[in-house]
Amino acid sequence: MDVLIKDGIVVTMDKERRVLKNFSLAIEDGVIVEIAREIKGEADFVIDARNKIVMPGLINTHTHAAMTLFRGSADDLPLMRWLQEEIWPVEAKLEPKHVYAGSLLACLEMLSSGITCFNDMYYHLEEVARSVLESGIRGVLSYPLLDIGGEEQGRRLLKEAERGLREYANKDSRVRVFLGPHAPYTCSKELLLKARELAEKHSTGIHIHVSETEEEVEGFVKDKGKRPFEYLDEIGFLGENVLAAHAVHVSGREIEIMKKRGVKVAHNPVSNMKLAAGVAPVADYVKAGVTVSLGTDGAASNNTLDLFQEMKTCALLQKVSRGDASAVPAQVVLEFATIGAAKALGLDREIGSLEVGKRGDVILVDLQRPNLRPLSNPVSHLVYAARGCDVCTVIVDGRVVIHGGSFRTLDIAEVCRFAEEEALDLFQKAGKAEKLFLSEEVL
Amino acid sequence: MDVLIKDGIVVTMDKERRVLKNFSLAIEDGVIVEIAREIKGEADFVIDARNKIVMPGLINTHTHAAMTLFRGSADDLPLMRWLQEEIWPVEAKLEPKHVYAGSLLACLEMLSSGITCFNDMYYHLEEVARSVLESGIRGVLSYPLLDIGGEEQGRRLLKEAERGLREYANKDSRVRVFLGPHAPYTCSKELLLKARELAEKHSTGIHIHVSETEEEVEGFVKDKGKRPFEYLDEIGFLGENVLAAHAVHVSGREIEIMKKRGVKVAHNPVSNMKLAAGVAPVADYVKAGVTVSLGTDGAASNNTLDLFQEMKTCALLQKVSRGDASAVPAQVVLEFATIGAAKALGLDREIGSLEVGKRGDVILVDLQRPNLRPLSNPVSHLVYAARGCDVCTVIVDGRVVIHGGSFRTLDIAEVCRFAEEEALDLFQKAGKAEKLFLSEEVL
Repeated sequence: MDVLIKDGIVVTMDKERRVLKNFSLAIEDGVIVEIAREIKGEADFVIDARNKIVMPGLINTHTHAAMTLFRGSADDLPLMRWLQEEIWPVEAKLEPKHVYAGSLLACLEMLSSGITCFNDMYYHLEEVARSVLESGIRGVLSYPLLDIGGEEQGRRLLKEAERGLREYANKDSRVRVFLGPHAPYTCSKELLLKARELAEKHSTGIHIHVSETEEEVEGFVKDKGKRPFEYLDEIGFLGENVLAAHAVHVSGREIEIMKKRGVKVAHNPVSNMKLAAGVAPVADYVKAGVTVSLGTDGAASNNTLDLFQEMKTCALLQKVSRGDASAVPAQVVLEFATIGAAKALGLDREIGSLEVGKRGDVILVDLQRPNLRPLSNPVSHLVYAARGCDVCTVIVDGRVVIHGGSFRTLDIAEVCRFAEEEALDLFQKAGKAEKLFLSEEVL
Repeated sequence: MDVLIKDGIVVTMDKERRVLKNFSLAIEDGVIVEIAREIKGEADFVIDARNKIVMPGLINTHTHAAMTLFRGSADDLPLMRWLQEEIWPVEAKLEPKHVYAGSLLACLEMLSSGITCFNDMYYHLEEVARSVLESGIRGVLSYPLLDIGGEEQGRRLLKEAERGLREYANKDSRVRVFLGPHAPYTCSKELLLKARELAEKHSTGIHIHVSETEEEVEGFVKDKGKRPFEYLDEIGFLGENVLAAHAVHVSGREIEIMKKRGVKVAHNPVSNMKLAAGVAPVADYVKAGVTVSLGTDGAASNNTLDLFQEMKTCALLQKVSRGDASAVPAQVVLEFATIGAAKALGLDREIGSLEVGKRGDVILVDLQRPNLRPLSNPVSHLVYAARGCDVCTVIVDGRVVIHGGSFRTLDIAEVCRFAEEEALDLFQKAGKAEKLFLSEEVL
């Protein structure tokens, strides 16, 4: 076998949600081939998992990876001022190399905190794909589609998306391409339905922002006379392959529609709080049987890409906003970040749990940390006490990307410097270089 | 000089809140003696701070350190069931050795995430003090006072507190003793006033829980006919040396009283969210000029002791609950955890900022991490992107306690095992050993 992980506490996230004490796990040709108390045979790479939790890699279902370049450049601002004055003027100057630098930094950051798969939406998809392939992470990528700037814009973007679908269809199973209609208020009915048609033709998914802020929903209702999910349902857009990012402001009737159509949710608690967007009705989604997953959103509105933080924040926000300390317990939140997220991306036959036959996307959490002792309850500790930096080993598709806290694919210092240089270049081009403090090595 | 920190980005938190690029800092006999671009002379310990932030150690103004032993043993429960069924039955079996083990683990955890001083309230103060002295942290300790169990209880606890005040008066400046009347609803008027008298006699502070939950305030109003801060003011209890933990449910009139009397607040956002206690009016405190600081509360209701997490959560919770993304910006939150916290403990002439003449409580944050790049804004990064584990060096009172991520005072593995063993012993004595999963090394 290729990789043997020995004698750990295995949090499987399988159907019975078994937690196995002192178990081992073997990976061969990228696939989990055995989970047992004792595994016989030789392995190329043996990992001692004593005093470590072995669990499925975390799945980030909504982000804009390249926006790490914007981290810390515009905080504590109201949403529209943030977008119009700070983000859009800089994004207007984005070149492929900036997207590559920001995405590479994001992949490094995500992997180092145990994220083995992410769902992205951003320009220059080929650069994001390049960073995925080089870093060793798994990526579901979509190019944003919108035609608020006219039919020609929609046609051009659809064409690029189709090219992406063809190009990555058989390239590397670590890169998948989704369709990314930006939002109901930036896409015409025609564009939405073309995206849906294309997704069906290529048997792939749809990644769309829906109902992030109250103002957005109010504006939509004023314009169309109905709420976003009602509208999307009426035009025939919704289906099991639709993943809605945010879904903060929804009515009870919309939750019923989402359940009926099999729509999935990517909940982004930190971003929703930082931009004061509101509190998504996560406990209601769970009650209705809607599949929920977690996203970090981009680093411009978070400002980190750490699903351990999202898990804890998700649980805390539901509890305080509902006045109920028992709302959304640890086990349920852990599902959001693993098997629930795999379902949200339509990848639950391949990833999201540790089971024989699934791909080898596995992380190890080091328990030799004061914040994880005493080891009263592994699931509670993963949600309420662990931090991204407690992850010591990361395996994606059977390949050991991080071990003992060290990267085996990329040089951290080099990627940090590269990202810092490209951020300076980008902000200079946008006439906003004074925004950046920057490190000594770049100045 | 003893310690020389060279060429860092110094976030001073001085009156002008200066951030100095490429500056050095020297410590001699526990005191900061120079902050300058270049410092001449030899030092016993030289620290290269290039690509690092140098900042005041963080100050945790409300915790129950020994409760790390309860971490993860009772989550997702309503407050009263949590206390009555899970916490109190185990606390009833607490022995001094359990408090020592739990406190030592807490000191380790706090130091490793950059906390150099904490304000504690718990039984067996002498054991907490022992863990403070051995670990190298700075501690403000108070023994809880209450007489809800009768006058005799109050007399006995007051006596112990007085003994503590005398014993630690001249022992080691790293240990201070405060008075800790538990809460207005568990202390008689007489006990509260005796605590105030004793605090004045010994020129020390008072650490008290006030208005954590709505039920508690409603019950108090029913009982006394007035709200907790109104009552405390009328009996003459309030003053500049009173630090109120939580202060979640307060009226506008109470905020005015707090401002007038100089009462300080220890805000615990994560604990308040996890127990669904509510959202403290932090932005209103700031507006009114009430000094705010941050606490982690105990690990039973958090479940970590990490002020980086509290800073970010504090800002996020204010923004989302007020529907205002500009509420409580990064600079203000950083004050809560440093100079504001020093003021809250009456220690702002000694700690809380990096200034010549202050004690050498200094931490370094490593910027060679993907989550802290590009370095657009050091203050934003400290609040929104840094994690406790990004702290690489910790100096308390001029002594290097952690360097390069490694402890120089304690053995992490040994403390973890000790805490795990004592947790098992405690839960066994409480008949709740089945609560603990526990690590292989203990079983």
